[in-house]
Amino acid sequence: MKLLAAQVNPTIGDLEGNERKILDILRRAKGSGADIVLFPELAVTGYPPEDLLLDGAMIEAAERQLEVIRPETKGMLVVVGVPRRCPWKGEKFLCNSAAVFRGGELIGFKDKTLLPTYDVFDEKRYFSEGAPVFLVEHLGWRIAVTICEDLWQHSNLVGYTRYGVDPVMALKEERPDLVLNLSASPYYFKRKETRWLVCSAAAKTLECPVVLCNQVGANDQLVFDGHSLYCNQKGELVQSARGFVEEDLVVEFDAHVCPCVREENGIQDLYRALVLGVKDYFGKQGFSHAVIGLSGGVDSALTACIACDALGASKVKAIALPSRYSSLESYADAACLADRLGIELKKVDIDGLFQEYLDQLSSAFQRPLTSLVVENLQARIRGMILMAFSNQEGSLLLNTSNKSEMAMGYTTLYGDLCGGLSVLSDVTKLRVYELCHFVNRKEEIIPKAILQKAPSAELRPNQTDQDTLPPFDVLDPILEDYLEKGRSLEEISTERNVSFSFVQGLTRQIHLAEYKRRQAPMGIRVTQKAFTKGRVVPIVQKWGEKK
Amino acid sequence: MKLLAAQVNPTIGDLEGNERKILDILRRAKGSGADIVLFPELAVTGYPPEDLLLDGAMIEAAERQLEVIRPETKGMLVVVGVPRRCPWKGEKFLCNSAAVFRGGELIGFKDKTLLPTYDVFDEKRYFSEGAPVFLVEHLGWRIAVTICEDLWQHSNLVGYTRYGVDPVMALKEERPDLVLNLSASPYYFKRKETRWLVCSAAAKTLECPVVLCNQVGANDQLVFDGHSLYCNQKGELVQSARGFVEEDLVVEFDAHVCPCVREENGIQDLYRALVLGVKDYFGKQGFSHAVIGLSGGVDSALTACIACDALGASKVKAIALPSRYSSLESYADAACLADRLGIELKKVDIDGLFQEYLDQLSSAFQRPLTSLVVENLQARIRGMILMAFSNQEGSLLLNTSNKSEMAMGYTTLYGDLCGGLSVLSDVTKLRVYELCHFVNRKEEIIPKAILQKAPSAELRPNQTDQDTLPPFDVLDPILEDYLEKGRSLEEISTERNVSFSFVQGLTRQIHLAEYKRRQAPMGIRVTQKAFTKGRVVPIVQKWGEKK
Repeated sequence: MKLLAAQVNPTIGDLEGNERKILDILRRAKGSGADIVLFPELAVTGYPPEDLLLDGAMIEAAERQLEVIRPETKGMLVVVGVPRRCPWKGEKFLCNSAAVFRGGELIGFKDKTLLPTYDVFDEKRYFSEGAPVFLVEHLGWRIAVTICEDLWQHSNLVGYTRYGVDPVMALKEERPDLVLNLSASPYYFKRKETRWLVCSAAAKTLECPVVLCNQVGANDQLVFDGHSLYCNQKGELVQSARGFVEEDLVVEFDAHVCPCVREENGIQDLYRALVLGVKDYFGKQGFSHAVIGLSGGVDSALTACIACDALGASKVKAIALPSRYSSLESYADAACLADRLGIELKKVDIDGLFQEYLDQLSSAFQRPLTSLVVENLQARIRGMILMAFSNQEGSLLLNTSNKSEMAMGYTTLYGDLCGGLSVLSDVTKLRVYELCHFVNRKEEIIPKAILQKAPSAELRPNQTDQDTLPPFDVLDPILEDYLEKGRSLEEISTERNVSFSFVQGLTRQIHLAEYKRRQAPMGIRVTQKAFTKGRVVPIVQKWGEKK
Repeated sequence: MKLLAAQVNPTIGDLEGNERKILDILRRAKGSGADIVLFPELAVTGYPPEDLLLDGAMIEAAERQLEVIRPETKGMLVVVGVPRRCPWKGEKFLCNSAAVFRGGELIGFKDKTLLPTYDVFDEKRYFSEGAPVFLVEHLGWRIAVTICEDLWQHSNLVGYTRYGVDPVMALKEERPDLVLNLSASPYYFKRKETRWLVCSAAAKTLECPVVLCNQVGANDQLVFDGHSLYCNQKGELVQSARGFVEEDLVVEFDAHVCPCVREENGIQDLYRALVLGVKDYFGKQGFSHAVIGLSGGVDSALTACIACDALGASKVKAIALPSRYSSLESYADAACLADRLGIELKKVDIDGLFQEYLDQLSSAFQRPLTSLVVENLQARIRGMILMAFSNQEGSLLLNTSNKSEMAMGYTTLYGDLCGGLSVLSDVTKLRVYELCHFVNRKEEIIPKAILQKAPSAELRPNQTDQDTLPPFDVLDPILEDYLEKGRSLEEISTERNVSFSFVQGLTRQIHLAEYKRRQAPMGIRVTQKAFTKGRVVPIVQKWGEKK
């Protein structure tokens, strides 16, 4: 028995483009003698289609795709993720389904049972719950079909939810010979291991192999890492597709293959997730060129490296925007980096414009300008010039803010918060340094000077981030505790050995900066909790602010 | 039997402030001889608390509030909305509940049965479903307690959902003498009538009166209009609280009161919703002063009127920002309006800065600037100056973009899209004019010249909106059809008597502008479908873009 798990990268709503990928794979699978072909969850539309699902025309078009796919499934069992109209009187009008074709016929649908509605998932907004057991026979094997979350309750690894049904237990008495799982399971730091644990637990309980086919590619803020996998009936990981690329995982169940080594390349995977996030944001929208403000600091340096890996150096333009407060070294460092990356660097001095604003506003206010005004002016002039380059040349501005500053509101709205996509908004400052060291692992790309100097916004003389923020090795672990792990202030204070009022002050600042984040560019999610749709908090509220 | 429905305006997460309101009302109710006191849904925390619900400390604090409330309920039946930990093994860890006190004891909880998860609602993210029937006896009456959506399935007026249970039918055989409904039902244009229809249908089926207590006040983008109501057993509307203010609705069931006239003051309610949206955004965050860019156009004129009604004229500052393309009339019109409103008007000419940018960028690009760059520069200089005023004086910038331009992307990111709150982003251009005429209903406040001239961004010579956009009397109805009513392109083309490709072109533009709206200030929702969390569409997608 030979299975091909097609780890594809669909574009949301691109029904024709996604169909081409599906048909290509089916022809390839047939050519290679595959018996089973497995696609990811909602492969026809891409995941997550969000409110496009409420457009009846898209659902009908998706259902029509199945008729195009059907003739290409002859001689095989083919399982494809597709949204469909709920055929019974369910609470919602759709199901998140797997169309099951056997030998050129559409023989049925498995409808997803467990519908995640937490964090970045909102499936109960759209879908009715399907029955937990779906089995199909093929070449004498009893094959169970499950969709993503359906396997997760069994390991108690779902978020904020305890489903009343565990499809794995429901399948137990059916004694399947193989479990297929269609997934669209997004990446976050060190996620791969969890996904394997989920499959392993199901395999052990059901005493049969599990093959999970995961979507790959970035859709808006979510990066799907692929890493499709085959786990044997002992729960051992036998094969895994690569991460962050389209790939066919070909499994020969009869062949004797030793369990593979489970690698967790945390930082490398993180870097590749960010590269893919940028690449797909551009590519899927038809943009090719990026512009970046290169300050000589570590965040913009890393962003430039990621952009070059995603788009190619010839497509990346850097602009240095020095003011009276910028050190000469900053420009030299930026120039050195641009040179090493082979990207064009332009220099536009902002001091003339800055002075013009100072003069005009001083006379308008008839009072000295506050330091807030003076600092924001510089950041906003930079934002304006970068946007002018973006508008003039049809390139997209990449935002370079990191998660630590996003959390604390240490950013200027319409200034350094400008951009089409925020590359590092889910990467804390400490991890920015880790990623820079990863970039430099073979040779020094990012100049040592950039990594060694104290972080500074250079908006006033001798300014450093630590004038305003706690040291990052204190701040970042607390941010992780509070935002990602949801720890209480008491726990954080005890575990991190800092005062309660210190933690309270930090979390208060996080909540006060919510209004800035709401207008920030969309960011690439790479942790359990990013500042995106996975974290829905009010701007106007007194709970978080008071704490 | 005397009931007091306490139409309160809670602040999200302000447990102490909300508690003070609740205790004040309980004392007042006791003083006035009330037998029953009814509060809105989640009155303890305010609605919607969003992910603050995931903070265990807030839930515990909310539950503790009940102990503070309890002693004040002596001699009465008191029903208060509160989130609580789900006491059974429900799918989610919380319930959206009503705490029921009788004679100084907490005698039980009604847990909301129908959990809306569509449009702006995401209750299945947090809550488990409670049983449909909850009855309590008081002074010989059998009283059913329901929470908001619980009544709506009976009228088939819920969105995108068909619940498997109808709590009204479940209550029918219990023959209640009275139905209480705790609501947090947000305003949109002409919503009041629908809410009455829902109560009327339940009253007729159950042959008993229904009292609905609705939250009032704005929380982020949602405005709750109040309009709490008492409907008799024939389904006639007998009493209604006013809209957009805190009020006690006092019902004497034994008294003979004639059904009241059901008024629908569409435009007046819309205006008041916008005023309340601004007032609460400022007041609940502790801000008092607003700054507005006054262009001499109709959108900023209306925004200034709303701001004056919300905050008082002395708290509103207007800035005129003319350039070489601004007509002299524009400034004169702005000055006339400022004079009539009694607000301070400052003039800051942007032409010097504009020229400085043109010079510097022309030399940086070594090519002529595109018209996109030239137009965006002006909008962004204005945004920067307005933000400088906001930063210098600690006032909030109000954004003045209307829904028609937001839909079409006829706005400049970081330019006219700057601001803390967008007042008109859910108000189409035609309705902006209607609201202006409402403002001028008694005397001319907004100068006639502002209402009569052709809308223009004044970013190039003799520019008008209609150079780029279809006439608003063509555009706005199509926007309403597509965005609010979810009509298909075919239906719109036929009904509006325009070509399919014209509608297709418009909807494509709507989707292409999604990235701008994602970075726009939060807006006040006043229609069935605003560009806020109620409409979740991907930025990177090909379905809507292709259409």
